[in-house]
Amino acid sequence: MKATIMYGAGDVRVENVPDPIIQRPTDAIVRIVRSCICGSDLHPYHSMPATPGGSPMGHEFIGVVEEVGGEVATLKKGDFVIAPFAWSDGTCVFCREGLQTSCEHGGFWAGGGIGGAQAEAIRVPLADGTLVKAPVDENSELLPSLLTLSDVFGTGFHAAKRARVDQSTTVTVIGDGAVGLMAVLSAKRLGAQRIILMGRHTARTDLGLEFGATDVVAERGEEGIAKVRELTGGYGTHTVLEAVGYREAYDQALGVVRAGGVISRVGVPQYEDAQLGWSMFGRNLTVTGGPAPVRAYIEELLPDVLSGVIDPGRVFDSTITLDEVPAGYKTMDDRTALKVLVTP
Amino acid sequence: MKATIMYGAGDVRVENVPDPIIQRPTDAIVRIVRSCICGSDLHPYHSMPATPGGSPMGHEFIGVVEEVGGEVATLKKGDFVIAPFAWSDGTCVFCREGLQTSCEHGGFWAGGGIGGAQAEAIRVPLADGTLVKAPVDENSELLPSLLTLSDVFGTGFHAAKRARVDQSTTVTVIGDGAVGLMAVLSAKRLGAQRIILMGRHTARTDLGLEFGATDVVAERGEEGIAKVRELTGGYGTHTVLEAVGYREAYDQALGVVRAGGVISRVGVPQYEDAQLGWSMFGRNLTVTGGPAPVRAYIEELLPDVLSGVIDPGRVFDSTITLDEVPAGYKTMDDRTALKVLVTP
Repeated sequence: MKATIMYGAGDVRVENVPDPIIQRPTDAIVRIVRSCICGSDLHPYHSMPATPGGSPMGHEFIGVVEEVGGEVATLKKGDFVIAPFAWSDGTCVFCREGLQTSCEHGGFWAGGGIGGAQAEAIRVPLADGTLVKAPVDENSELLPSLLTLSDVFGTGFHAAKRARVDQSTTVTVIGDGAVGLMAVLSAKRLGAQRIILMGRHTARTDLGLEFGATDVVAERGEEGIAKVRELTGGYGTHTVLEAVGYREAYDQALGVVRAGGVISRVGVPQYEDAQLGWSMFGRNLTVTGGPAPVRAYIEELLPDVLSGVIDPGRVFDSTITLDEVPAGYKTMDDRTALKVLVTP
Repeated sequence: MKATIMYGAGDVRVENVPDPIIQRPTDAIVRIVRSCICGSDLHPYHSMPATPGGSPMGHEFIGVVEEVGGEVATLKKGDFVIAPFAWSDGTCVFCREGLQTSCEHGGFWAGGGIGGAQAEAIRVPLADGTLVKAPVDENSELLPSLLTLSDVFGTGFHAAKRARVDQSTTVTVIGDGAVGLMAVLSAKRLGAQRIILMGRHTARTDLGLEFGATDVVAERGEEGIAKVRELTGGYGTHTVLEAVGYREAYDQALGVVRAGGVISRVGVPQYEDAQLGWSMFGRNLTVTGGPAPVRAYIEELLPDVLSGVIDPGRVFDSTITLDEVPAGYKTMDDRTALKVLVTP
């Protein structure tokens, strides 16, 4: 089958690799119907050292079950499924608490002998715990929105949930990428009345306004902080959903958060140490967030996707075939595409 | 009157200073009945540059109202009062939310023209918002416990509240100083069944066991982390109440906290940047805490202090007069005293 392999920064290739096969009785093989390129894929695209063996890519997919191992109880050939970006057993102490990204027996795609999702098919470990069935077929118009449940929608929702957004909280979202826009949609869904989106790409922030943002601040750094404070009576907002991951975004979050407030991070931090001293402590700020246990949210978010009440799939503004994935990385990287959908 | 002035590291003097007087109609003058020395007073005791004018010291006190300004409505001469370590108006948006340490018009003792509490009397700004009356007289046996409501008990309680400790959460308390021991008492009060106290001063950890700790870990660093993990099936605890403030304590907290858990800091951080990268983010950890709005907790904690159900005043293991305060700093610093009570 065809699969995407990254060999180093900027070096993405689609190659023929062996078809995935059942290796454990809890595995399933899924034929991928839609996958996509993630903002986080751009981190290795910028910095991966040259690696002769390469690394499979992609962690978001929806597809059809082709084969199941002997111990898989809840799935059968032909089921349409949504896969979270982490696989998990669904039974360990962390899964039972809804923290599937810390599953004691789980892991992440595209590593440790598990293939990537920018491919024609994939082996899914712990299939009963990992996959969620959806009552659609592979020609459904809902596919883009269903695919967002694999990562970006659940990730934006996690940011808002961890920040405890509700109708009493004002919100700043930092970042107008797909996750930032999903954070806007999620904050709106949780009742927030005031959602300030910080981003400077008009096409994206326009979509953010449609998703529920009440204000857009295009400025960054000190200028952006001053603007958010001006919009909030000088206080800043109760919550800040940080969907970027760079240190500058964290510093910006510190600048726009209200005393007693919460910074909820879902952008993978591209730094180690950051400000936790008096300027953070003195105002009783909370920093939270992490890799979203999107598996915990799929059932909650799925009905409104199926009914069309929400349409998170609008974050996809480009559709390509698997063969075009290397070019797709480039369009994501130069920001001519917001988020790229990949068809087989 | 006599008051304590620090002139630099290790240089604490009790001197005669002018009596405090009403300066604004919202002020009260309080004659101090009991004050004490705080662990946080040791930070300038270690590092304060030589300062010719000196700095008044002390931020915890209980006392009797001697005089009130014309706009003070709820207090009168003769009232026995508890003072939180921050003064606040009680009416601003933050005070109404219970975050009095961020009061828009408030501040902290011993600075900005406000005297310190290691003195015979003090001017209390915004007296209506700041002071809480207690139905006792100045000969009450409850004075030490009432004094803990001024800072250490409320601070330990804040750590536990911010961490959302309840009967389902396991707890590690880092630090066997007065605040750490109050964090143990608070976690117990909030229902925690498992409270691991990390400290190596047996007299203190013994008191911690009486306050509700179920385990004591005397080891520090990697060894201490391994011990806590061993006690918790390898997971660590849901919450860590960090009552020290040094970077080592934060790193230790990261080591003993369970995935998805909360580090709640009430030790004033003696560092700026610290770990907020993947090792923290990847496990969906939360860092919270700050200067405790103890004013918000006094009414809640007072009844059980008055009834004797709890006896937080046991953290005081030394009682001195105001003239002996310089020696009191030394006993706190060399850890021959846990917490020093100061009588007039």
